[in-house]
Amino acid sequence: MEIDFQKSGGLVPAIVQDAGTGEVLMLGFMNAESLAETQQSREVVFFSRSRNQLWKKGESSGHVLLVREIRVDCDSDALLVRAEAVGPGVCHEGYRSCFFRKLEPDGNATVIAERTFAPEKVYGSEKTR
Amino acid sequence: MEIDFQKSGGLVPAIVQDAGTGEVLMLGFMNAESLAETQQSREVVFFSRSRNQLWKKGESSGHVLLVREIRVDCDSDALLVRAEAVGPGVCHEGYRSCFFRKLEPDGNATVIAERTFAPEKVYGSEKTR
Repeated sequence: MEIDFQKSGGLVPAIVQDAGTGEVLMLGFMNAESLAETQQSREVVFFSRSRNQLWKKGESSGHVLLVREIRVDCDSDALLVRAEAVGPGVCHEGYRSCFFRKLEPDGNATVIAERTFAPEKVYGSEKTR
Repeated sequence: MEIDFQKSGGLVPAIVQDAGTGEVLMLGFMNAESLAETQQSREVVFFSRSRNQLWKKGESSGHVLLVREIRVDCDSDALLVRAEAVGPGVCHEGYRSCFFRKLEPDGNATVIAERTFAPEKVYGSEKTR
């Protein structure tokens, strides 16, 4: 089967969902190379759009994502990675999930989760995640 | 709060998750206008990249997505819509979720879900979903 990487300039969005709880943890992008590395290593590797290079999730924090299953959607242009998250959280802001804010009808955002770790202790001054 | 629509040419990926079961149902894209319409109507409106126009999910099938909550991620460039799916499924192929195939290590895809409706009866010859 062919993944349609062309619709978004060589990238497809990849949703990461906690395989145990069903919580949606984050969304990243993958190119063909990062998907191949993810499948081979069974740890999630994204393509970083800001750094324009492969980005192994957890490379500095140790908070890697162990792949349990990869699903592909009907149009073959989006991936759903069901994974086990190692560590207290995937978000560089110190939360279990990157989706820790609720968008209110008035356009404001409200934090709806508790911090699970202190990001400055995990990431230091480095910006890799 | 500002959603960062610029990183992907005016669009952000929007994950739709069943608010009751936690199942990830589909991924679409939203521009500022479709997000505003989604917030106002409380039914999911995407921006269709192939048709280059707003696309209200369920406009022809009746399988609309009733918004329960919208979450935004740490970088403000991805949305998670927790919704109630009206009808037997969101996928134009006749499945409850668009992520009905598993990507195998050898690159093949395996259908892992049962069809919940006959798509030709719901969509007819129309391609809108």
